[in-house]
Amino acid sequence: MTSALITDFYELTMMQGYFLKKHNPRVVFDVFYRNNPFNGGYTVFAGLEELIDELEEFRFSDEDIAYLRSLDYFDSTFLDYLEGYRFSGDLYAFEEGTPAFPGEPLVRVESSLMDCQLVEAFILNKLNFQTLIATKANRMVYATRGRGAIMEFGLRRAQGENGAHAASRASFIGGTRVTSNTYAGKKYGIPVSGTMAHSWIMSFDSEEEAFRAYASIYPDNCVLLIDTYDTLGSGIEAAIRIGLEQKARGKKIGVRIDSGDLNYLPRVIRERLDSAGLEDATICVSNDLTEEIIQTLVSDGVPIDSWGIGTHLVTGGTQSSLNGVYKLAAKEENGIFEPTLKVSNSFEKTTNPGIKQVYRFYDANDNALADLITLDNETVQEGVNHTFFHPFSMGDFFVMRKDAYKYVRPLLGKKMEAGRRVSERRELKDIQAYALSALEHLHKSYKRQINPHIYKVSLSKRLRDLKMDLILKVRGAV
Amino acid sequence: MTSALITDFYELTMMQGYFLKKHNPRVVFDVFYRNNPFNGGYTVFAGLEELIDELEEFRFSDEDIAYLRSLDYFDSTFLDYLEGYRFSGDLYAFEEGTPAFPGEPLVRVESSLMDCQLVEAFILNKLNFQTLIATKANRMVYATRGRGAIMEFGLRRAQGENGAHAASRASFIGGTRVTSNTYAGKKYGIPVSGTMAHSWIMSFDSEEEAFRAYASIYPDNCVLLIDTYDTLGSGIEAAIRIGLEQKARGKKIGVRIDSGDLNYLPRVIRERLDSAGLEDATICVSNDLTEEIIQTLVSDGVPIDSWGIGTHLVTGGTQSSLNGVYKLAAKEENGIFEPTLKVSNSFEKTTNPGIKQVYRFYDANDNALADLITLDNETVQEGVNHTFFHPFSMGDFFVMRKDAYKYVRPLLGKKMEAGRRVSERRELKDIQAYALSALEHLHKSYKRQINPHIYKVSLSKRLRDLKMDLILKVRGAV
Repeated sequence: MTSALITDFYELTMMQGYFLKKHNPRVVFDVFYRNNPFNGGYTVFAGLEELIDELEEFRFSDEDIAYLRSLDYFDSTFLDYLEGYRFSGDLYAFEEGTPAFPGEPLVRVESSLMDCQLVEAFILNKLNFQTLIATKANRMVYATRGRGAIMEFGLRRAQGENGAHAASRASFIGGTRVTSNTYAGKKYGIPVSGTMAHSWIMSFDSEEEAFRAYASIYPDNCVLLIDTYDTLGSGIEAAIRIGLEQKARGKKIGVRIDSGDLNYLPRVIRERLDSAGLEDATICVSNDLTEEIIQTLVSDGVPIDSWGIGTHLVTGGTQSSLNGVYKLAAKEENGIFEPTLKVSNSFEKTTNPGIKQVYRFYDANDNALADLITLDNETVQEGVNHTFFHPFSMGDFFVMRKDAYKYVRPLLGKKMEAGRRVSERRELKDIQAYALSALEHLHKSYKRQINPHIYKVSLSKRLRDLKMDLILKVRGAV
Repeated sequence: MTSALITDFYELTMMQGYFLKKHNPRVVFDVFYRNNPFNGGYTVFAGLEELIDELEEFRFSDEDIAYLRSLDYFDSTFLDYLEGYRFSGDLYAFEEGTPAFPGEPLVRVESSLMDCQLVEAFILNKLNFQTLIATKANRMVYATRGRGAIMEFGLRRAQGENGAHAASRASFIGGTRVTSNTYAGKKYGIPVSGTMAHSWIMSFDSEEEAFRAYASIYPDNCVLLIDTYDTLGSGIEAAIRIGLEQKARGKKIGVRIDSGDLNYLPRVIRERLDSAGLEDATICVSNDLTEEIIQTLVSDGVPIDSWGIGTHLVTGGTQSSLNGVYKLAAKEENGIFEPTLKVSNSFEKTTNPGIKQVYRFYDANDNALADLITLDNETVQEGVNHTFFHPFSMGDFFVMRKDAYKYVRPLLGKKMEAGRRVSERRELKDIQAYALSALEHLHKSYKRQINPHIYKVSLSKRLRDLKMDLILKVRGAV
């Protein structure tokens, strides 16, 4: 069970309002975000499969109801209703792991107003954070340019236990290979990894003794931490002695450096290892790595075989949240869905009204070209020209010519119906494989760390016209 | 039960190493951090009471053991040992809510090496994050200068569910008054709050209808969100009409502004409300507030009665982690604890060796003056002069004269013995009260948002001498 108390209190006050006023039309909400995090060009949509599982189990326990009753704020008829509450909405979403862009409806929830309202914060909590971290992980992976695997070591710096587990899951989707978080290993099937801390070395009388003890127990996974006392002195010297002992047994070592100048030390250590005949020894670095540091080390050609990353990966670093929102898009009136609009003083923040679909246009090599947001009942034919309207700038448009693309695919698929999963449950490793393949088909200009190209997300003519009509109406144009 | 899999994998590989090598001396680890977050002058130590509860329940389920077995990495004798594992350490800590400073041992864990190692990441995960958020909350409260309560609204932007709950708990310790996170309300007894979202208004045919419906259900807690369509037009106009209806019934309203210029809008709205005779209507603002924005609005005298804050409160904003670490301080050899030291190329990162205590010196008005880290077996007498040595800069010291302070208190108290709680369990509201009182007795120069004064944390002469001796020894001075 997932406690339905994981909701903002105002959802409950509004829900009781709808209940008492018998005002509970069927509605549609969209989840979208407005700006790419990290000044980047994309996100990796994450959190969905877990969200579906948990929405299926989203309910109020007897204890939850007793708590709400104790607040003396809710009518007993409403509390009785909550006792039997189950999420019963239909949910449409992008596949988890899909590259996503600002303004796109990533998830669409259709249900009664009360139902849609209750799940808002839960949905956003799940998707905002995991999307943020899958994106950060993928940016770090991209920064390595294929040189060395990233190991996620974030448990101790993550935001709460579940913040750690969710971060491990999302990082893996974004392309990290292993986690140090053993619980996440069990829960999600992520490979776990880790060898020794400074305390291992300090608990023995010497580094050499500590390393030898480790090698005797774990001859096949012997990564020695060499910076406890003196990296280029006792540390690397002891590691080389153990490395030669390992070599004599047909085994290898790795070394890990967790402090000091990571641009300088690996070069010296690589030479020392090589001249000792330990060419197959690997070098792992850790210590507050950021994507910017990775990029510098890689472009400077520092010999690094793997990266242990915690803090800046699992929290997002200086950008610690994604601003995904959940907005009303349509409301049933007299049996049909009427589009709704939230206007704003800044036009860019005005929502896109109505029930929508997103079509991604691809070239013959399966590369994503641009996305078109349409009304759900529009058909987007292949083999014809399409006009793409800028979402804010009303004079801006371009024509996607029929020979510029090969095929289109709708991105929103039905995942839940009446509160039950109707899509196949995907394993985390399959989500990762899907994400990495899709990201390979996103042109690198969108993945640049700095000043990336802007991937085009446009409106169809019908959606643009509807938006404009509604703005005029809501604002009272004459 | 708390799963003992919430641990970094290397803790388990080291632990098996100690187990197989029968190398399991009694040891002491310290938790401390090196730099105040947010370029600030202090932290608010948080997470402790929850940590104690969960450490008491920290163990491996059958399923956890089965998972570890499946990794084909652990000896069955070791897995049998883990099956019966319970945390059995002694734990000393600062009271939760105590203002804390860099370099101070906030928690000291004494147990077998295996036991201490396993709980490292769990302890850090709990304390790092809650301390970060309690500190951020307190900085925001301080920025209000007593003008208006802060409401924590962070669930949807928090890092995972538990990241949200833990943030609600820690924020409250730091001085926020209510949370929107209903689950945290139940779990921790934090008052919950919330009224309406834009979708409430959009689901009705007009703002006025939506407001009136709300007022009829919640006449005593009627905060109207006025920026759905046109804040200074339809929004405030409808709110004033409802406000006058409420007034006729002897009730009040509040208005909330969630977009636009928060320095300008509240002034205009205050005037509009006042000239309508609604002087007792309150104004709440929200929308990506940071401590810097709060400070500006307060110093500009903008009429704001309460603050709804999410993102930048519950994630720490641009600083999303505290760099708390867990370092070996002593190791039993032949029946006595020998101090240990982790040196570093940068001397500031060299640890303080041995089993330690922290004494806070107070003046006659209970104001904190400075802290002295000593060896645990030193006595710090009152009524005499004390020399305070700088923790890094070996020539730097000052004398705390006997007439400059009134009394001293040790900050590390025994909280767990042999894995069981021995201190009284404190309610969250009592922790908050304690924290706010202690923070009131911290001079405001340490609480400045920018360039705060540095609170002095010094070493006793005996600790300083021990540290220097060990450095010479470890580094092989002749």
